[in-house]
Amino acid sequence: MKRFLFSLLALLLVLCAAAQDRVERWGCYELTLSATVPGNPYDVALTATFTNGSDKYTVRGFCDGEGVFKVRFMPPSEGRWTWVTASKVPALNRRKGSFECTAPSADNHGPVVPDGRHFKYADGTRYYPVGTTAYDWMHVGEEAAARTVASLKESGFNKLRMLFFLHNLPVEYLDIYPFEKKADGSWDYTRFNPEYFRYVERRLLALQEIGVEADLILFHPYDGGRWGFDRMPLEANLRYLSYITARFAAFRHVWWSLANEWDGVKGIPAEDWDKFAHAVADGDPYGHLLSIHGYTATYYDYSDPVFTHASIQDHGPVLERGRAHTVSQIYKKPVIFDEVCYEGNVGSRWGMLSGQEMLRRMYNGLMSGTYVTHAETFNAEAGSSAEDECNFLAYGREFRGESWKRIRFLRAVLDALPGPPGLADHNWDEYTTAAGDGCYLIYFGAGIRSEWKFDLPVKNNLYARPKQGERYRVEILDTWNMTVTPWPVIFETATPGSYRILDKEGRGVRLPETPYLLLRITKI
Amino acid sequence: MKRFLFSLLALLLVLCAAAQDRVERWGCYELTLSATVPGNPYDVALTATFTNGSDKYTVRGFCDGEGVFKVRFMPPSEGRWTWVTASKVPALNRRKGSFECTAPSADNHGPVVPDGRHFKYADGTRYYPVGTTAYDWMHVGEEAAARTVASLKESGFNKLRMLFFLHNLPVEYLDIYPFEKKADGSWDYTRFNPEYFRYVERRLLALQEIGVEADLILFHPYDGGRWGFDRMPLEANLRYLSYITARFAAFRHVWWSLANEWDGVKGIPAEDWDKFAHAVADGDPYGHLLSIHGYTATYYDYSDPVFTHASIQDHGPVLERGRAHTVSQIYKKPVIFDEVCYEGNVGSRWGMLSGQEMLRRMYNGLMSGTYVTHAETFNAEAGSSAEDECNFLAYGREFRGESWKRIRFLRAVLDALPGPPGLADHNWDEYTTAAGDGCYLIYFGAGIRSEWKFDLPVKNNLYARPKQGERYRVEILDTWNMTVTPWPVIFETATPGSYRILDKEGRGVRLPETPYLLLRITKI
Repeated sequence: MKRFLFSLLALLLVLCAAAQDRVERWGCYELTLSATVPGNPYDVALTATFTNGSDKYTVRGFCDGEGVFKVRFMPPSEGRWTWVTASKVPALNRRKGSFECTAPSADNHGPVVPDGRHFKYADGTRYYPVGTTAYDWMHVGEEAAARTVASLKESGFNKLRMLFFLHNLPVEYLDIYPFEKKADGSWDYTRFNPEYFRYVERRLLALQEIGVEADLILFHPYDGGRWGFDRMPLEANLRYLSYITARFAAFRHVWWSLANEWDGVKGIPAEDWDKFAHAVADGDPYGHLLSIHGYTATYYDYSDPVFTHASIQDHGPVLERGRAHTVSQIYKKPVIFDEVCYEGNVGSRWGMLSGQEMLRRMYNGLMSGTYVTHAETFNAEAGSSAEDECNFLAYGREFRGESWKRIRFLRAVLDALPGPPGLADHNWDEYTTAAGDGCYLIYFGAGIRSEWKFDLPVKNNLYARPKQGERYRVEILDTWNMTVTPWPVIFETATPGSYRILDKEGRGVRLPETPYLLLRITKI
Repeated sequence: MKRFLFSLLALLLVLCAAAQDRVERWGCYELTLSATVPGNPYDVALTATFTNGSDKYTVRGFCDGEGVFKVRFMPPSEGRWTWVTASKVPALNRRKGSFECTAPSADNHGPVVPDGRHFKYADGTRYYPVGTTAYDWMHVGEEAAARTVASLKESGFNKLRMLFFLHNLPVEYLDIYPFEKKADGSWDYTRFNPEYFRYVERRLLALQEIGVEADLILFHPYDGGRWGFDRMPLEANLRYLSYITARFAAFRHVWWSLANEWDGVKGIPAEDWDKFAHAVADGDPYGHLLSIHGYTATYYDYSDPVFTHASIQDHGPVLERGRAHTVSQIYKKPVIFDEVCYEGNVGSRWGMLSGQEMLRRMYNGLMSGTYVTHAETFNAEAGSSAEDECNFLAYGREFRGESWKRIRFLRAVLDALPGPPGLADHNWDEYTTAAGDGCYLIYFGAGIRSEWKFDLPVKNNLYARPKQGERYRVEILDTWNMTVTPWPVIFETATPGSYRILDKEGRGVRLPETPYLLLRITKI
């Protein structure tokens, strides 16, 4: 445990040490200034402008406790960056410095950015979100959090949905909170508690270390009146958003999720969410991913470009192949179904999927060019409705289900694709996914087939159309048992018809009569 | 034929007579002024302001040929309306008058307006669009057009999608066009041909007479370079939109469809469509329904409030029950699937549905709270790809399919609903539609079932939830054979479970083993 804490602190020092001389591209440069100010130090306005040739960023600083002010910066280009601060506080004004931004280390591909209806890292590496959910993993102590990180590392998930504010669950919490308390015991929303933010930062950096993007949920309805962070006044909400973006925006792997189930947060008027989106965007000069998540089938209006992607709770579009395609066609930006029910054994209908069904829904979404987030919710006692501590959805720690074991395989399938997947021929063909020139995926879900005749759509919304005389190989992937079986025949396309193109000899693939098969068809 | 023409003209006179003393509410008041102007009379700006107490509308007039200027007005409230004109032309300026607006006649419910995700007439009467399509019915002459009107009247459709501009089809056209020609034979887009507009108006009024809303398509890609109305300069497009709205906006049953397959109109830059939407809205003081229609699965961005509803070409969402619900949840405004493939026998995959499948898709959309437009495309020779003259989709005249015969029955089902339909419990239950308090519809599509156990969702997104001890009757509707069979048992609800509520004795309905059944379940 001590070793773990030490390594986290060491990591933090490397990534965010004060007055660094060198920082890698998309790393976190941090400068620390001291000043004694009259009044509330959290009211002090401080910015720093960073310049590297024509690249210029002005970022907000923040108070990290009495007398300590910091500015963090994620340099987006290599070379010599110089900086100068601005503040009405003389000790914080016109301070200057510079640092060298070096090439990124091997595992650092920069922040994830939208790329049409998909995502990529800033260095161009493709990023397919395959996320899971552990709302309160940070809030149950460092030992539990370390176990969650170990589970995530083992599983291969590359995104985690997580709450910033505490969740009213029947467990022992940390004894630290985001705000200071007033003499009367109420929260002072004008004064932050840096200790809480530092605690969260250590958790965030532990995720960065293992390549997991942090889909950080800024508000949620699960406070239940215990602390009241779901019903702060507008000014407190905006102050919080300004502070959290000043602190966290320099972490390349942070995504902003304005809310989980926003329409359940009764203390925040519906019209405030758009304000919050713009407040976050104003505080984040790098344009990290930003979305908002509602109740089942709520569908927020994501048309404002401030929303980089749609983050949706709805299982309807992933019940069958092809349905999520419509959602992608409507939004024309990346779509993540961040809740499609959970693998588990709770008594509620949203938390009792089998592992097979959880995985099938993930593939259904992927085959239509959208992304589906995993979660599992196993209680110690099956069917109980109380959330207990073995529930990964809330507490993290160890997975207990079956679908998480298939995530590395799923990611390997995605990472091997020449291009992002999507339906080749709209809903004229709900089976066939195109994933790059000459690459097709055909997912049979729970259905059993004894044979698949080589049969592709002539049309292709996304990539080059197939032509006569092309040669293809086919592999049979068992997505549940995680096997890849090459089929021995090399197919050759016949003259295309109006809509379909077949093998010139009408050959096909004999399929094992087992569910969850995926064909990978690749032009040679 | 002469009698037909005469009756149309008589109708026009009644509805749009110059200098009327009395006009019914939502009728068309028309005032005619004479003025000889230097230069192009179509460049003359003329408006009239109509006032009735606090109701005040300023509407644009238009030139109806050399020396003749008109202003049309659809009075939205009863009582004494006074008007005064404004123009830089002295003979058209400060002309004044008044008329009495009387109660609407029995079949006049006013224009159709959006009502949440559904529609109603301005007088509050519910309007469920059950439309069909005859793009060129106006362009093939008066005799053919009269046959189309007779077919529509017989069928019970209450909306028609139709092109304003001619379609390049291999038939004899009218010898009149929307614009005058220049000496060199090219079109003079600055001078309209009132004769063409008058011809169209007579067609529009024939639809109004039989209660069919005119979903008028303002641009389309089917010109094929023959006349060039799909590639006019921006200024000509805007001038056309100003003129057509000045002429037609006072017809209560006109809807504006900016385009059919807008993304196929290569002569109009994509960014112009939003301009056109606002140009139409500017020219239409009554806010008639306004949308735009794209290629298969294109999904225009309908988030601008100027779009009153979504008009979509895509069959994907109506392939199964429940799928269209997601589209409705996203848009939060009325959704009409204005093309889901057609009943017909052409060789293309978009035009070879059976009548059963056409009708099933319409019910699938309706069960999820959306609307689906019918069309049929039968060629004389099955499988031929050439469009021939028996094709209702293009030319109108007589229906040849089977689904149209079931439209009056479908409309009777809709008109009997206590409220607009929609999925009761999102995609947790894709079978059960709620349609008012205590009213449910369960549609089995092509599936065969021998029994339905009384089994309703406890949750209801739209209307009151069912409670214990309520009594329900069930009718079996055969949507294809158009029968209604009451089931003799009166059901009584047991204690609700978490998600479902059953009959207290577990009773059900024995179903005839035939497809396309719809259960209508009504609380007594």
